[in-house]
Amino acid sequence: MGHRLADTSTPARLAAPDEGIGRDELALATRNHGLPLEAMRHDLTPPGLHYVLTHYDIPYVPEDTPWRLGVGGRVRRPLTLTPAELRSLPRVTTRVTMECAGNGRALLTPRPVSQPWLVEAVGTAEWTGVPLRLLLAEVGVEADAVDVVCTGADHGVERGVEQDYQRALPLGVATGTEPDVLVAYEMNGTPLPPQHGHPLRLVVPGWYGMAHVKWLREITVTDTPFTGFQQTVAYRLRQHPGDEGEPVTRIAPRALLVPPGFPDFMSRARVVRPGAVTLEGRAWSGRAPVTRAEVSTDAGQSWHEAELEPDAGHRWAWRRWRFNWRAEPGAYVLSARATDAEGHTQPLEQPWNRGGFVNNLVQRVEVLCLDEESGG
Amino acid sequence: MGHRLADTSTPARLAAPDEGIGRDELALATRNHGLPLEAMRHDLTPPGLHYVLTHYDIPYVPEDTPWRLGVGGRVRRPLTLTPAELRSLPRVTTRVTMECAGNGRALLTPRPVSQPWLVEAVGTAEWTGVPLRLLLAEVGVEADAVDVVCTGADHGVERGVEQDYQRALPLGVATGTEPDVLVAYEMNGTPLPPQHGHPLRLVVPGWYGMAHVKWLREITVTDTPFTGFQQTVAYRLRQHPGDEGEPVTRIAPRALLVPPGFPDFMSRARVVRPGAVTLEGRAWSGRAPVTRAEVSTDAGQSWHEAELEPDAGHRWAWRRWRFNWRAEPGAYVLSARATDAEGHTQPLEQPWNRGGFVNNLVQRVEVLCLDEESGG
Repeated sequence: MGHRLADTSTPARLAAPDEGIGRDELALATRNHGLPLEAMRHDLTPPGLHYVLTHYDIPYVPEDTPWRLGVGGRVRRPLTLTPAELRSLPRVTTRVTMECAGNGRALLTPRPVSQPWLVEAVGTAEWTGVPLRLLLAEVGVEADAVDVVCTGADHGVERGVEQDYQRALPLGVATGTEPDVLVAYEMNGTPLPPQHGHPLRLVVPGWYGMAHVKWLREITVTDTPFTGFQQTVAYRLRQHPGDEGEPVTRIAPRALLVPPGFPDFMSRARVVRPGAVTLEGRAWSGRAPVTRAEVSTDAGQSWHEAELEPDAGHRWAWRRWRFNWRAEPGAYVLSARATDAEGHTQPLEQPWNRGGFVNNLVQRVEVLCLDEESGG
Repeated sequence: MGHRLADTSTPARLAAPDEGIGRDELALATRNHGLPLEAMRHDLTPPGLHYVLTHYDIPYVPEDTPWRLGVGGRVRRPLTLTPAELRSLPRVTTRVTMECAGNGRALLTPRPVSQPWLVEAVGTAEWTGVPLRLLLAEVGVEADAVDVVCTGADHGVERGVEQDYQRALPLGVATGTEPDVLVAYEMNGTPLPPQHGHPLRLVVPGWYGMAHVKWLREITVTDTPFTGFQQTVAYRLRQHPGDEGEPVTRIAPRALLVPPGFPDFMSRARVVRPGAVTLEGRAWSGRAPVTRAEVSTDAGQSWHEAELEPDAGHRWAWRRWRFNWRAEPGAYVLSARATDAEGHTQPLEQPWNRGGFVNNLVQRVEVLCLDEESGG
């Protein structure tokens, strides 16, 4: 009897109609983690609260580990750089809201079996690094270049395919200035933590998380479109397994509420007392600046304009919004909705695709407002 | 119709025999998170990788928030201290392995419905703070004192009971030196992160996590045993709902493996190639020093002595162990087992209690060793 990867690595599947979250999904949910939504009160997500998704293991890179970033392929002067050499080049710091492409997957029906995110796979940090376009200018990209393939040090098997994590950006995005793609070495002013790509990662402001290759060790310019697993098998919007599908790219608009009041430990339902309650949250879009946030306190039947905080010039980061609510005893479903300058907004009915990507269905927060005199 | 806490906060329950993980358990798994086991390679768990469990919301305490710790109750000279005042007192730094009392709960049959930990609810950090015994000496504990009740700023409802998180230590533990209980303000040399109790938390080396009250704001000495929810309802070992039960206290011995090779993304099963594989991991006990670690490669049928790293004097922290394995093609279940100086060890058959606490069943790591020539 042979022992092959197919014995342990099975095809993608959808959960059966009443199938609860399985042991495999739970193992992913226990390793990876979302942003506890009350932490959206912080403009910059504190260390350890930013969402994390790693496909394979977090590489072990102690301080004294030599690290080299190769830049090669269809270039005239291939380069190898140490993190120290990267730090000596011009640096840019950008505030970026990053979201996992699979955020919201566990709320879908049917549920694609993978990392079972609810809505918390988001976080905002200031990333410091070298613009990728400067590195590409330095090595001299050939005229026939098409894609810029980024390879991480994380290694594993997925749907039967053994691989280093790899993703490509089209050359125009890799060399663009809106946004500046970064080869980042700092998060919120300190060296990257292990789980965020120490010592180097890509940061692609406005794009879903799969593009921000962590533990970056190789940048390869190609003259043909990249066809790796994470580009052509995973991270595509498909209705059927055989579809070619559309690639997942920029972040669709989303607004989330800081859940008001206090929680029940187990149900996570929220409890408030009657009176004035300031609702607040964040809104973002990777497609165009957010121009509007709305709030509903009746499960999306009616909507009220929320107040967006003034634009502070952080194009690629979330914006805070506020709404004054007068709570009266009763049971509520609160929601928020973002709209961006190109008119993209959030659906009230669930869209669906087989990978469970790019879900931006409006959030539902169940809130109980107690009777006036209620002590319990 | 009234609107009361009972509408949203329901009694404890056990999952039905084939009930998958529910939406409520998933919401907890998405907020809280375990230590990705490959990060056990680090002696000190890097920020953001240490396990976190918060019952309610993480309090929002920006840098400029005034904070006061009250020390009162059955004492002669009640005190109120700022974090700055605490920093001016004698400090102690202790390396501590902390584990959630509910670690392993999701592996139990039947499964208590709560935070669904597999085995990763652990982490090791160096905590710096003031010994609690010094604060208690300063305020002068009355002769009739029994318990020391610690109150956090985290507020919520649990099984119908609205509460601030509160736990008590017996006076003898609170004033003891083996270990020194700390009122801590630093984790690994930097101020506590929000999710670990910023600005102040209790650290009780050797005890399960429920004792290490975060966001500490009040220490109250009482002359009667504390009967709060987290002391007498939660965190007790019971077979039946009506049992008085035994309190959960010190950490039972446990050993965990750094999973070898590389993972399959979805199943998290491990893949290695034939040949020499160094197995390594950590072992700890809050009851007595770890004296032995063993490894099994045949699902616990036979055991081999692992090499414990030399004792570095960190009594309350995990110890590394190593074992050289020669992998041959096949499917394996790897396990590790810790034994401490008092002879406590880990069971091979599942013990069980209604809360799912103090589980130290030996870990099972499924590993596939590929055929020699296997490329996939």
